[in-house]
Amino acid sequence: MKIAIAGSGALGCGFGYMMQKGGNEVTLLDFWEDHIQAIRENGLSITVNGKEDNITIPVGKPDEFNETFETVFIFTKSMGLRHMLEAIKHLLDENTKVVCLLNGLGHANTISKYVPKKNIIMGTTVWTGGLDAPGKTHFMGEGPVEVQNSDENEEAAARQVVQMMADCGLNGVYSSNVHFTTWRKACVNGTMNALCSLLDCNIKELFETAQIDQLNHNIVSEFSRVAETEGVQLDVEETINYLKTVAEKVGGHYPSMHQDLKNKRPTEIDFLNGVVAKESEINGFEAPYSKQITQLIHAKEDILGIKR
Amino acid sequence: MKIAIAGSGALGCGFGYMMQKGGNEVTLLDFWEDHIQAIRENGLSITVNGKEDNITIPVGKPDEFNETFETVFIFTKSMGLRHMLEAIKHLLDENTKVVCLLNGLGHANTISKYVPKKNIIMGTTVWTGGLDAPGKTHFMGEGPVEVQNSDENEEAAARQVVQMMADCGLNGVYSSNVHFTTWRKACVNGTMNALCSLLDCNIKELFETAQIDQLNHNIVSEFSRVAETEGVQLDVEETINYLKTVAEKVGGHYPSMHQDLKNKRPTEIDFLNGVVAKESEINGFEAPYSKQITQLIHAKEDILGIKR
Repeated sequence: MKIAIAGSGALGCGFGYMMQKGGNEVTLLDFWEDHIQAIRENGLSITVNGKEDNITIPVGKPDEFNETFETVFIFTKSMGLRHMLEAIKHLLDENTKVVCLLNGLGHANTISKYVPKKNIIMGTTVWTGGLDAPGKTHFMGEGPVEVQNSDENEEAAARQVVQMMADCGLNGVYSSNVHFTTWRKACVNGTMNALCSLLDCNIKELFETAQIDQLNHNIVSEFSRVAETEGVQLDVEETINYLKTVAEKVGGHYPSMHQDLKNKRPTEIDFLNGVVAKESEINGFEAPYSKQITQLIHAKEDILGIKR
Repeated sequence: MKIAIAGSGALGCGFGYMMQKGGNEVTLLDFWEDHIQAIRENGLSITVNGKEDNITIPVGKPDEFNETFETVFIFTKSMGLRHMLEAIKHLLDENTKVVCLLNGLGHANTISKYVPKKNIIMGTTVWTGGLDAPGKTHFMGEGPVEVQNSDENEEAAARQVVQMMADCGLNGVYSSNVHFTTWRKACVNGTMNALCSLLDCNIKELFETAQIDQLNHNIVSEFSRVAETEGVQLDVEETINYLKTVAEKVGGHYPSMHQDLKNKRPTEIDFLNGVVAKESEINGFEAPYSKQITQLIHAKEDILGIKR
């Protein structure tokens, strides 16, 4: 498969590496010049589940290419999605499948402004990674990468992507309800990720507070109500219990938004609690808990001098 | 006037000092042994508006005294009020006036469990201070100390307290609506004090965020709605503008709850946003913004290992 990775940070490099190793023709796309130059000069140095490797792989800015791809995987930050779609639109033809595994809500809507529904494949991943230096990344995981076609007639295309990923050791899984998985994951991020960032603590510390049940309940209830307007049934109590099992598993981990604030980067709160706050208003009800969390995280960004 | 100061921290010592200097017979009451011993051995060392002094003044735990007082001024923390009232009840006779200048909401109710309404005088103060070491405090101010009788027939008693304070340089002022002043002050503390504590910033930084107007509006609207159930009219826009003028005046100051968290002491959030959250429920409506702020501050206390 001829694949482009749109956004070659830690996850993009990880997926790109695995797919090239699996026999696909992979090109990395990014905007960060130091990173591109390092990969061109020294190859991509990557550690996958603890094992180091170095590969030569095509890399460049989107406007340096003038061909189309069979499949494009998007691995930007949520707030970089629109800019990336704008930059890669000349690389898509009428059959190019666009696969989006980003965290957060509302991305399918954004993509549909650039890509016909029949070509959109949405998904989620629990693989993680980090960028250690330009040209040097690490990548970890084993859990499923769930994907589903947005257009119900396009299951075959999604299953082809699943098979390709499975062949590359990426644990591709066809999902019959990826929308549910996306919302559930958004609940994880909209509670423990947002709250740890706000309270400057790790997940274990957060779940040891006497307030965690109430805090989770209030936020999850709002997520559930908005999810329902999109046809997704998110049981509040079941979700809260799921959060507890996730918290027990990850323990003393500082989630991504906490790291964003620490490293003075804008957070993805507008694509989590922020979406719930906005969508609730559009649907004629209030989501004050999510609204206040969004405002508080943005206030914290402002206090830290982070530009959005 | 024969006066007891119930709670002799920074404000208690400041008021006690000024009143003794003004010719009253003042006794300091407290529970902190090191502080009591230091004052007994070396006198009370105090700096008032920059001017240092040292006085000899009676001091002890409430159970070391067995007499009654004409007037008792309460200067505990909000959460210490009930315990103090329990400890001093043998020092009150049927005519002892109890004056409460504490920050926060709901204190008149607590006092009324121990003191007949005719003897309760509620008030507010904008004087501030700090405790530097056992027996050593500072005290600053010039603004009004507003008081009002709780029982409408007892104006004369409140005016006597006002006159006494005015004679002592404490700028006593008779208020015809101290309930309004108390609620307005609670709005200041329920917004900038709570938010600075949560976001770990000073008042200037908070008011420079793009979110401050929305955050203030949501919280003040809830305070206003609960105030109305107590017959207090708190105009939301006027109050928000008042908050801005306060913020401009105090600037780079870290408010009291921020200092509480920093010094690992429990905050007074239950007597501010916490009261609004509870009273709204009693009155059949929701105050989600105040509720979540209260939960977040308590979670922060838990994370810092602060015992309540």
